[in-house]
Amino acid sequence: MGRIVQKFGGSSVADAESIKRVARRIARTRGEGHDVIIVISAMGDTTDDLMDLALKVSPRPKSRELDMLLTTGERQSAALLAMALSDLGVAAVSYTGSQAGVITTPTHGNARIIDITPGRVEKALGEGNVAIVAGFQGVAQTTKDVTTLGRGASDTTAVALAAALGADYCEIYSDVDGVYTADPRIVKSARHVQEIGYEDMMEMAASGAKILHLRCVEYARREGVPVHVRSSFSDQPGTWVKNQDEITKDDTMEEAIITGVAHDRGEAKITIAGVPDKVGEAARIFRAVADEDLNIDMIVQNISRLSDVKTDISFTLPMSDGAKAIAALEAVKDEVGFDELLYDDQIGKVSVVGVGMRSHPGVSATFFDALAKADVNLQMISTSEIRISVIVGADDVDRAVRAAHTAFGLDADSEATVYAGTGR
Amino acid sequence: MGRIVQKFGGSSVADAESIKRVARRIARTRGEGHDVIIVISAMGDTTDDLMDLALKVSPRPKSRELDMLLTTGERQSAALLAMALSDLGVAAVSYTGSQAGVITTPTHGNARIIDITPGRVEKALGEGNVAIVAGFQGVAQTTKDVTTLGRGASDTTAVALAAALGADYCEIYSDVDGVYTADPRIVKSARHVQEIGYEDMMEMAASGAKILHLRCVEYARREGVPVHVRSSFSDQPGTWVKNQDEITKDDTMEEAIITGVAHDRGEAKITIAGVPDKVGEAARIFRAVADEDLNIDMIVQNISRLSDVKTDISFTLPMSDGAKAIAALEAVKDEVGFDELLYDDQIGKVSVVGVGMRSHPGVSATFFDALAKADVNLQMISTSEIRISVIVGADDVDRAVRAAHTAFGLDADSEATVYAGTGR
Repeated sequence: MGRIVQKFGGSSVADAESIKRVARRIARTRGEGHDVIIVISAMGDTTDDLMDLALKVSPRPKSRELDMLLTTGERQSAALLAMALSDLGVAAVSYTGSQAGVITTPTHGNARIIDITPGRVEKALGEGNVAIVAGFQGVAQTTKDVTTLGRGASDTTAVALAAALGADYCEIYSDVDGVYTADPRIVKSARHVQEIGYEDMMEMAASGAKILHLRCVEYARREGVPVHVRSSFSDQPGTWVKNQDEITKDDTMEEAIITGVAHDRGEAKITIAGVPDKVGEAARIFRAVADEDLNIDMIVQNISRLSDVKTDISFTLPMSDGAKAIAALEAVKDEVGFDELLYDDQIGKVSVVGVGMRSHPGVSATFFDALAKADVNLQMISTSEIRISVIVGADDVDRAVRAAHTAFGLDADSEATVYAGTGR
Repeated sequence: MGRIVQKFGGSSVADAESIKRVARRIARTRGEGHDVIIVISAMGDTTDDLMDLALKVSPRPKSRELDMLLTTGERQSAALLAMALSDLGVAAVSYTGSQAGVITTPTHGNARIIDITPGRVEKALGEGNVAIVAGFQGVAQTTKDVTTLGRGASDTTAVALAAALGADYCEIYSDVDGVYTADPRIVKSARHVQEIGYEDMMEMAASGAKILHLRCVEYARREGVPVHVRSSFSDQPGTWVKNQDEITKDDTMEEAIITGVAHDRGEAKITIAGVPDKVGEAARIFRAVADEDLNIDMIVQNISRLSDVKTDISFTLPMSDGAKAIAALEAVKDEVGFDELLYDDQIGKVSVVGVGMRSHPGVSATFFDALAKADVNLQMISTSEIRISVIVGADDVDRAVRAAHTAFGLDADSEATVYAGTGR
């Protein structure tokens, strides 16, 4: 008998009926004799509704209080799930993040897990209970205040608990049945990926695949926790995320250089035009942006065509941070002395990801060639050891994804039977 | 400069606008230089909505989990209020009952406060903050689980905090502006009571006046905390609840024997007919009811007119407990050997309350005489040292209240300007 952590997302517990359905699934796992630890998200739109309420009360809600407010959503679903399990004759106890020993940094709204002290959870398991932990939250080590880990971070809670409790693996349930070689809504012939290495999964997550949160995969890799991403609406196996060298070699796939094609429509591009080409200007610019706690993704610097003493710097960042970045840059305009700011959110990022890239030269050539043939214009290029990303016009994203998928031989012979929802 | 606890009920924080209104009121008190501690209820119907959700998930929700669920309501309003205060430039921090050190018994759903350890609240006050505490909740001393104090018990939290923090007084804000000599919706000439002794207030609360929770008044009396019951919708003074001997003598009221007339439509009457008149039968009956944790109010035993070896026993209890009591009694029917059970919820209780009763004989005669003249038939009678209660038919309640109010000289010369909502 093993020990298993299961995490259920908001779409899996959208209403009373789905809570009962999830309870039946947990009861089945428990019935097989395993120790079961559940991490649960808030019901459906609860978090968004609470955020709306906060904004009605205050235009700029204090982050400490926002955390107090938002964490109630997961507490509610945790308590409700415990009730539903009891009705099925399964002993269950719910815990807040704080009660479960999720110790974090004090950064409200975006705290990081420092430590897990799961004494109460361990005790509950020992007494034969299913332990249900409210996701997305913890308690700050220093201030003892309630913190949130940032959105989507219930996955991280689950993996962290799995590591702390020595679980065999961690299952992440949502409305999608795992990772595909591309978004099946765009590429009809996308293949379901049965196993993927941590590194590929990290690059996929960083490139816009919404299956798992990047921080969660990082945590899983560091702690060596196998993660099974699967659908709460079916019994089909999902995708296992594990060590690259433990992945089963599939004969038909042994030639695959690229694991998948990811895309992201959530970024915007900012170009700072006419920056004086002097030492320290770039540092000054990115310091101004960093001080606002914004996450920059790609950065490209070109020599301007207009002058040889000025340069243009472009970077991308989450669209939601766009206005804040523009304001921060306007504030240093005189100091830096650039000409103008250009903002463009009609863009998309398309990435090909795969550890196979390391041993196969020519991947970028194949990629760019495919994009050119599909008549896709490239605005920015960025690469890592196992990923190549390009920024293209928003209208070109679908065409670029399909072209890359075909060019790297990822197309399945037939359309896959896919159960995929609208993402989380 | 003093130290003041203010408690705001659910109707005072029904939506974002009212939360902002309450924040402005608190800011005013804080602006006068006082230390301010706020105890807050859940917004409007939140608690009822959460209870409905629980019942959709589980027909009999586990009480531990119900407490986890329901306590989120107060946490939300506390966090929202802290945000609203910050916007007004008033430093404020919200705390759960547990964080505020509200230590209770482990009886989920109906815990009692054992102790208050307000270290974090005291620290927050010392740092110049308004401290906002989620009402209705605490943490069990033994299990460390979250508990609720029973509905309406945010008042008790407020008084207990006032005692523990050495506050000058405790203000209870709701949608009514204090205690009246009778319900102004029934008696147009009811007078507003400016000051009332703890004992009278306890009897009024026990007799159906919904102004303050009985347990709250008991706590205030024991700890000597003056309580100011007032409306959050006006600046008029409300009713001060304090020691009897500190009450200002009002010339025009010095003859008052009766402080007020209370009524309660929330009870039902159960008659156990034909109980064998033997030692121990009554004990057996009430043990059966007590085992179900039901609160019995009045008990009357009559010799049956049909037989001299059998007797009838009647008692009243909250209507909501009626079905449970009937079931418990049916279960012991053979053992006790009574003839039948009669259930009647078309009744009401009318009580006259006043410490003046102690020194004035003849109060019951005046009361019963007035009821007879108003053609009100009495079903049961019960008295304490400072209260006389009668059970009458539901249709007779209003007439009985008016008759008693007039008979004891409580009618005001003119109709009072009343701000009274629909109760809490």
